[in-house]
Amino acid sequence: MDRNFKAEEKYWSFLLPFLGNLEEKEQDEMTKFERVATGMGEECGVFGAYSLGGEDVAASVYYGLFALQHRGQESCGIAVTDTFGRRRFLSKKGLGHVNDVFDEETLLELKGNLGVGHVRYSTVGGTRVENAQPLVINYVKGTLSIAHNGNLVNAVELRKELEYTGAIFQTTIDSEVIAYHVARERLNTENAEGAVKNAMKKIKGAYALVVCSPRKMIGARDPFGLKPLCIGKRDQTYFLASESCAIAAVDAEFIRDVFPGEVVTISEKGIVSDMSMAIPKEKQARCIFEYIYFARTDSTIDGINVYHSRILAGKALAKSYPVEADLVIGVPDSGLVAAKGYSEQSGIPYGIGFHKNSYVGRTFIKPKQSERETSVKIKLSVIPEVVKGKRVIMVDDSIVRGTTCANIIKMLKQAGAEEVHVRISAPPFLYPCYFGTDVPSGDQLIAHTHTPEQIREMIGADSLGYMEIGMLKDMVGDLSYCDACFTGNYPMEVPEEDISLAFE
Amino acid sequence: MDRNFKAEEKYWSFLLPFLGNLEEKEQDEMTKFERVATGMGEECGVFGAYSLGGEDVAASVYYGLFALQHRGQESCGIAVTDTFGRRRFLSKKGLGHVNDVFDEETLLELKGNLGVGHVRYSTVGGTRVENAQPLVINYVKGTLSIAHNGNLVNAVELRKELEYTGAIFQTTIDSEVIAYHVARERLNTENAEGAVKNAMKKIKGAYALVVCSPRKMIGARDPFGLKPLCIGKRDQTYFLASESCAIAAVDAEFIRDVFPGEVVTISEKGIVSDMSMAIPKEKQARCIFEYIYFARTDSTIDGINVYHSRILAGKALAKSYPVEADLVIGVPDSGLVAAKGYSEQSGIPYGIGFHKNSYVGRTFIKPKQSERETSVKIKLSVIPEVVKGKRVIMVDDSIVRGTTCANIIKMLKQAGAEEVHVRISAPPFLYPCYFGTDVPSGDQLIAHTHTPEQIREMIGADSLGYMEIGMLKDMVGDLSYCDACFTGNYPMEVPEEDISLAFE
Amino acid sequence: MDRNFKAEEKYWSFLLPFLGNLEEKEQDEMTKFERVATGMGEECGVFGAYSLGGEDVAASVYYGLFALQHRGQESCGIAVTDTFGRRRFLSKKGLGHVNDVFDEETLLELKGNLGVGHVRYSTVGGTRVENAQPLVINYVKGTLSIAHNGNLVNAVELRKELEYTGAIFQTTIDSEVIAYHVARERLNTENAEGAVKNAMKKIKGAYALVVCSPRKMIGARDPFGLKPLCIGKRDQTYFLASESCAIAAVDAEFIRDVFPGEVVTISEKGIVSDMSMAIPKEKQARCIFEYIYFARTDSTIDGINVYHSRILAGKALAKSYPVEADLVIGVPDSGLVAAKGYSEQSGIPYGIGFHKNSYVGRTFIKPKQSERETSVKIKLSVIPEVVKGKRVIMVDDSIVRGTTCANIIKMLKQAGAEEVHVRISAPPFLYPCYFGTDVPSGDQLIAHTHTPEQIREMIGADSLGYMEIGMLKDMVGDLSYCDACFTGNYPMEVPEEDISLAFE
Amino acid sequence: MDRNFKAEEKYWSFLLPFLGNLEEKEQDEMTKFERVATGMGEECGVFGAYSLGGEDVAASVYYGLFALQHRGQESCGIAVTDTFGRRRFLSKKGLGHVNDVFDEETLLELKGNLGVGHVRYSTVGGTRVENAQPLVINYVKGTLSIAHNGNLVNAVELRKELEYTGAIFQTTIDSEVIAYHVARERLNTENAEGAVKNAMKKIKGAYALVVCSPRKMIGARDPFGLKPLCIGKRDQTYFLASESCAIAAVDAEFIRDVFPGEVVTISEKGIVSDMSMAIPKEKQARCIFEYIYFARTDSTIDGINVYHSRILAGKALAKSYPVEADLVIGVPDSGLVAAKGYSEQSGIPYGIGFHKNSYVGRTFIKPKQSERETSVKIKLSVIPEVVKGKRVIMVDDSIVRGTTCANIIKMLKQAGAEEVHVRISAPPFLYPCYFGTDVPSGDQLIAHTHTPEQIREMIGADSLGYMEIGMLKDMVGDLSYCDACFTGNYPMEVPEEDISLAFE
Repeated sequence: MDRNFKAEEKYWSFLLPFLGNLEEKEQDEMTKFERVATGMGEECGVFGAYSLGGEDVAASVYYGLFALQHRGQESCGIAVTDTFGRRRFLSKKGLGHVNDVFDEETLLELKGNLGVGHVRYSTVGGTRVENAQPLVINYVKGTLSIAHNGNLVNAVELRKELEYTGAIFQTTIDSEVIAYHVARERLNTENAEGAVKNAMKKIKGAYALVVCSPRKMIGARDPFGLKPLCIGKRDQTYFLASESCAIAAVDAEFIRDVFPGEVVTISEKGIVSDMSMAIPKEKQARCIFEYIYFARTDSTIDGINVYHSRILAGKALAKSYPVEADLVIGVPDSGLVAAKGYSEQSGIPYGIGFHKNSYVGRTFIKPKQSERETSVKIKLSVIPEVVKGKRVIMVDDSIVRGTTCANIIKMLKQAGAEEVHVRISAPPFLYPCYFGTDVPSGDQLIAHTHTPEQIREMIGADSLGYMEIGMLKDMVGDLSYCDACFTGNYPMEVPEEDISLAFE
Repeated sequence: MDRNFKAEEKYWSFLLPFLGNLEEKEQDEMTKFERVATGMGEECGVFGAYSLGGEDVAASVYYGLFALQHRGQESCGIAVTDTFGRRRFLSKKGLGHVNDVFDEETLLELKGNLGVGHVRYSTVGGTRVENAQPLVINYVKGTLSIAHNGNLVNAVELRKELEYTGAIFQTTIDSEVIAYHVARERLNTENAEGAVKNAMKKIKGAYALVVCSPRKMIGARDPFGLKPLCIGKRDQTYFLASESCAIAAVDAEFIRDVFPGEVVTISEKGIVSDMSMAIPKEKQARCIFEYIYFARTDSTIDGINVYHSRILAGKALAKSYPVEADLVIGVPDSGLVAAKGYSEQSGIPYGIGFHKNSYVGRTFIKPKQSERETSVKIKLSVIPEVVKGKRVIMVDDSIVRGTTCANIIKMLKQAGAEEVHVRISAPPFLYPCYFGTDVPSGDQLIAHTHTPEQIREMIGADSLGYMEIGMLKDMVGDLSYCDACFTGNYPMEVPEEDISLAFE
Repeated sequence: MDRNFKAEEKYWSFLLPFLGNLEEKEQDEMTKFERVATGMGEECGVFGAYSLGGEDVAASVYYGLFALQHRGQESCGIAVTDTFGRRRFLSKKGLGHVNDVFDEETLLELKGNLGVGHVRYSTVGGTRVENAQPLVINYVKGTLSIAHNGNLVNAVELRKELEYTGAIFQTTIDSEVIAYHVARERLNTENAEGAVKNAMKKIKGAYALVVCSPRKMIGARDPFGLKPLCIGKRDQTYFLASESCAIAAVDAEFIRDVFPGEVVTISEKGIVSDMSMAIPKEKQARCIFEYIYFARTDSTIDGINVYHSRILAGKALAKSYPVEADLVIGVPDSGLVAAKGYSEQSGIPYGIGFHKNSYVGRTFIKPKQSERETSVKIKLSVIPEVVKGKRVIMVDDSIVRGTTCANIIKMLKQAGAEEVHVRISAPPFLYPCYFGTDVPSGDQLIAHTHTPEQIREMIGADSLGYMEIGMLKDMVGDLSYCDACFTGNYPMEVPEEDISLAFE
Repeated sequence: MDRNFKAEEKYWSFLLPFLGNLEEKEQDEMTKFERVATGMGEECGVFGAYSLGGEDVAASVYYGLFALQHRGQESCGIAVTDTFGRRRFLSKKGLGHVNDVFDEETLLELKGNLGVGHVRYSTVGGTRVENAQPLVINYVKGTLSIAHNGNLVNAVELRKELEYTGAIFQTTIDSEVIAYHVARERLNTENAEGAVKNAMKKIKGAYALVVCSPRKMIGARDPFGLKPLCIGKRDQTYFLASESCAIAAVDAEFIRDVFPGEVVTISEKGIVSDMSMAIPKEKQARCIFEYIYFARTDSTIDGINVYHSRILAGKALAKSYPVEADLVIGVPDSGLVAAKGYSEQSGIPYGIGFHKNSYVGRTFIKPKQSERETSVKIKLSVIPEVVKGKRVIMVDDSIVRGTTCANIIKMLKQAGAEEVHVRISAPPFLYPCYFGTDVPSGDQLIAHTHTPEQIREMIGADSLGYMEIGMLKDMVGDLSYCDACFTGNYPMEVPEEDISLAFE
């Protein structure tokens, strides 16, 4: 399913009144301003670049962020420094996509050979530029810039602790908590990388970090490896990126993934690794949802190619939920590859069932005066020629509230599909994620309150099959992973209550 | 190939210096302002709506334009009137996409039950809001709004004639010439539809028109049927649209295509047809490029489904240019369906070889400081897992200058493809189009100055096959069509010289 | 009174509910879009520049328009051509102030040594870019650009005539009517200036024109001289401007005014004058309101300095309406000079009674949630120190609906003024202006429905004196002028009904 | 002199090459991004509102900021909370003027009955939204918002201290230092006002503070009273404002000034005052420049009306530097009142010598292609009628580099003034201000490197008189004030070196 649909399903589903048996929730009562204060749930992307040869890196960071834009569309930012001279960070952050925030002139002004960028996840409505990253801070040893993907589970506790020693917080992002810990550890540590490592002893949760000190680029990944991070190189320039697709985008060579628990320090000495925070491989817990949905098809994370894992997911579905049909189609963009896998395994032809309107972007409005048109139709249309008279298997990656899925099935049937068999390349979400995946709360999720058979009936499918939990391991070989959102088996202790911050 | 690539290839190709044997042309010397004055070559989309029941139609027109956005991204506009009251057109036009120009408030202000909208083709750089459509004019019988897709071949001559009778021109678009003729014919005609018909006797070329008088919506298509236009209905509301996908987008029922040469008048009396300008079927000349590239995959034009015609194109390619290979892949978006057809015909598996970055839009900039990154890499990336070690057939719809194609082949080989066989689902462009397709001038086209074998070598392909002219007819059944850009066989007399206007 | 107040008084006066005896009119029911279609009443400014030496003039035109910005804030535009080469006009028009529409890059792109600019009057709400000037047209002899200040009284009639010969109109501005006539006369005239002169035989009303043909800059002024126009020179560059202040702003020398009825042609031959349309001096009818309100204090029109005429107006008021008082203050900006004149004549000290907030511009909003604050207070504040305990004479240039005036008097009394004597430096508006001054229609004007004594009571003044009609002549020496808005004595036949266009 | 001129004189003076004897300084080499990091020198305005009755205050704060806009045009912000419910601050900050940043919708979303706003001084070029105020922080006791006008002299030292205890800084504004101290003191203090008071024991320098805790609005003024702050009331709503003009703008009653060193706490208990930080009256040191230039003419600060003090300044000048002349004119806006005072004392008539173009705002550009036009001419023009043949006394408030002044004198002489006698209503700047006034550094100041006689000659004046230091006391009665920028007599110890922060 398409990222815009995801957001829409949660916020606009009240617009689709024909699903009588789906209880419509009260529309979120938070105003635009209130929503932002929770600061929960962001998925993000980070990208660092360090040219030892002294070339400006802002353009490369800009390209890298473009390749990571799917990881966050709310806001973005770049901070750069000149390791030979200025030793001060220049930064530019703003709301919107990379090409909303940056233009030629701004990139030229961001002079410096060491830089880091960030893209942040977009929740509909609530945004504020104060929460954009990278954070640039001044502290006892000078200056640092920090970009962070992930979510801490002990952020509330750490904030409280910090506050009791006189800390003030100006954002609601965990990165500020991390920055404080790095700054404080630095008082008693020989160098910045040591401070990052010591901070890691305090912070618990999911994180991929890029921290730039005036002369070093430091990458770190939480010991479970929940969030991805990898290293690339092009001539004398080193890169750190959330996904390998961004390394490729800047025409660099992929070196390797940062290991779970590793701290890598890139400086004039090259890459120096500190593995002292690493934990045994079997305890590692990569987010399985990176493979299912977050990561780009052309990325490879910890040795497993995302495209390949989705093909395997489709194959697994075909094995578990075979059905006689004429055609397999995927819901763009994320369902396409799993559909291909289903087709390959089942021998049922793969078809191009949908046209996705690529002009419907962030700013699409649904005029109030329009009663008949649905936004689903504007974003996605069925190619009748393909599905008419066919028994269709439709593969998607998730069902959130069910309204979008029901609409798509309705469109397929109106276009002449005789049967629509839905296959979902992930198990149902049943548990909250505390590590940065924005899963709606329980009662917003159809799977939380209905059986698969009830869901099937509500969305109007002829059959419905979810990926089985036991088959997830097929997707990622012998890597150990986190599937807590499906199973409740969290790799670490998580808060009993919702950890969203209440500032009062 | 993707529309953005098209534009880029023409204007940015000088950025790609590694193709030594491709002579780089002088960069266009026209300034931003000069470029616009030529007014040539626009592809466009039109959409009309008339609610006999008196409901506001601006939101429906907005949705319809969204579905036609692929036909024009430079500017757009909507003009509406209230047939029960005001009888004056309110309009809003602007540069940019539909969701740049319109917001909730503007749509609410555009009150009226009869309206027409337009999207206009984007050429890089040159744009001016004065040329946006619909035109709203006041004339002897009151007021009209006109939206037009196409290009007249006798526009210069008609302008001259009009000027000798005292006409003044404020735009460089042919629609102004048409408006003058409708206005003048109206002096001696009983009604607006009669004036449109009489104007059609004077204007020569390609046109699909939607003309709204205070109480009528008139659709007209040139006798050759070069440009598409169709009719839809939803309850008491009638629609006219360039493509059927826009009818579907507003949840309306597709009624039929407007016939080549037909004038349809929609009023309280329903649909009234005038076929007196029609010509024999065998003389009709639909633009074949609508099927190859312009139209949306989910549209059906004159009874031929676009998806289907592209599947047939792929099949024809497979018959003409078979090759032993492991995989067929299409260049998104337009090459995908033809690749599917090639796969179906050849039995060689269809693969998803590329990831297209859907966040790279109109405003993407290529920073000057960036030397290594190419914009192709940002827009399109290869999925190495899919192509590694494979002999790949790559299907695209055209090769303009060759630089983008060469870049993509290079990326495939870097990703491990052993062979890359290029199949183009159209014949080479060899002749200028005078009907509104923006084909670069001769010496900008690689096919104009090189043999296919030379091109193959220059782009680095292992083999290259263009659609054969004789096979175009396979795509569209027994419809007669225009293939002049490939053959030089124009369906009507065309100017000897370039018809771009020189205003002096 | 300040121009923003003027607009506000008409549209926002319903916000000020405390004036019980002023009947509040129904708020204008026209929507934003409807309002624009009337096209009436604009005051405007024109500025032309022709560098015979071949230097680019866009920057000079930009400066000239800045100096004329007070004559129009709705929209502006510049069109330029290169008399040595291109012979095509490049233009840029937009809604808003000169510094909203133009930036460095745009000015650089507007290359050319002959250019004309225009600023257009702002009515609150209704605007559309289609009506911005200069008009650039293509016609039988090539191309022209036209900028026009004024209003024709036979525009409706001329439009009708033109329409009967096949003309179409895309704007609602009189300039389009003028352009048609110039274009048509050009068919039978030797040169462009001849066509302008012949067009002047047809058009009736008020106009100051700058018409640029590819090699000439032509200025023309209606025979009555209702609108001002003057000539300046700097080295090899000639200028035409609505007011002499704009000539000074570009550091040029003031040459002379264009005479009423004169056509001046500026070309390589220098200035050539054609006076054949001139009428006897005693029939001339300069708009007296230019001296009272429109023109800038530092301009001189037809030999009479605007500052000086306002001083004389103040003196005349002091003679007609003497009163014992301690202080004379003027309402910024336009009342200041007349207040100075009153002070000089009466010997009563001149004081600085108000602070005007120069940051309250076009985009000031009045939040709905605010009930207590009035926009008058935000824009203008009394300096209590100055007026406390004083008997104050307050001079302003007009009273439209009375609400703003009443508010200001209330503020003065709250600040401790013991008496407030209001003196208005113009007679009451009693008759509509057909020549381009945006006087509200009769029943919107307090003077139309109330006696001065009633008005005095309603606004809370201790005395009220309007300029007497007989004293207007003191302001302008022996120049003959138009005072029709006060007297109903129009210098030419005017339409019996409102000439606002009804397009149906 | 006008604020825009001030900025311009410093940055654009290199454009005016005709002043051969003025050595042009190297243009500031800092880039747009570098400039911002210094964070020095801001003048600002603060405005707080607390409706005990529970009404929303955002609109009132918006109006209040409008009235304080002259104190800062770089950025602005509003933060509000709802004391009955939410207890969380919603905020909106942005670059630009109040009406750039706020619109109706935003104000409606800022729901809350306790709020604070801020306007920040604009330095040309360098700006960043991170430094906009109010700061909203979360700390151990919940949340606070802080708006601050002024500059600390021990900020660098305090930052260092804080950093050694683990503080991180995300902005370069002193308000962050203050926020830290309030947060830390709050750990050991009973209530928020106590924390503010204790923080005041640490921070040294100039400050007027508005601090909002969830249920209190706290105002504080440094013991010297360097920056102004006053209290107003309207029904159940209390206000704190930098100047009394803002109290008037919201139609509230002026209660009193906050006393130097006072902490006022406004809550449901009304106003509670804590004077324990106050110092003896004779040690107080109000910024004299508030009276000369910063504050609005209609404000009253510490009992002295600004208008009145400027009249007295003019009178003092007339006594010290009498000259035979025909006319006294003031340079708008700030020179006008002093000119009036000079006129009153000397008996020489006051005249309106200049027209100020009120449309030249922040976004005015000086096109590069323009060589002849000077920006001074665009902003200010002489009314020749007034000055021709006259011996003119011209009063302004300061001479910075001399270029603007020289230009104005040149314009006066070109307009026919026979003599121009310049009188400056302040002594020459000779010493840096450490308290928030943005005085250019020494060698940028003409007075620093030239004698008055040299300056007179360079600017082309016939005589020149600066306010004498000894006469400043005439302006403010028996209030004690700070005149360190003229005398070097600082009211407290100041850093030996420049305190601009170097972040490395």
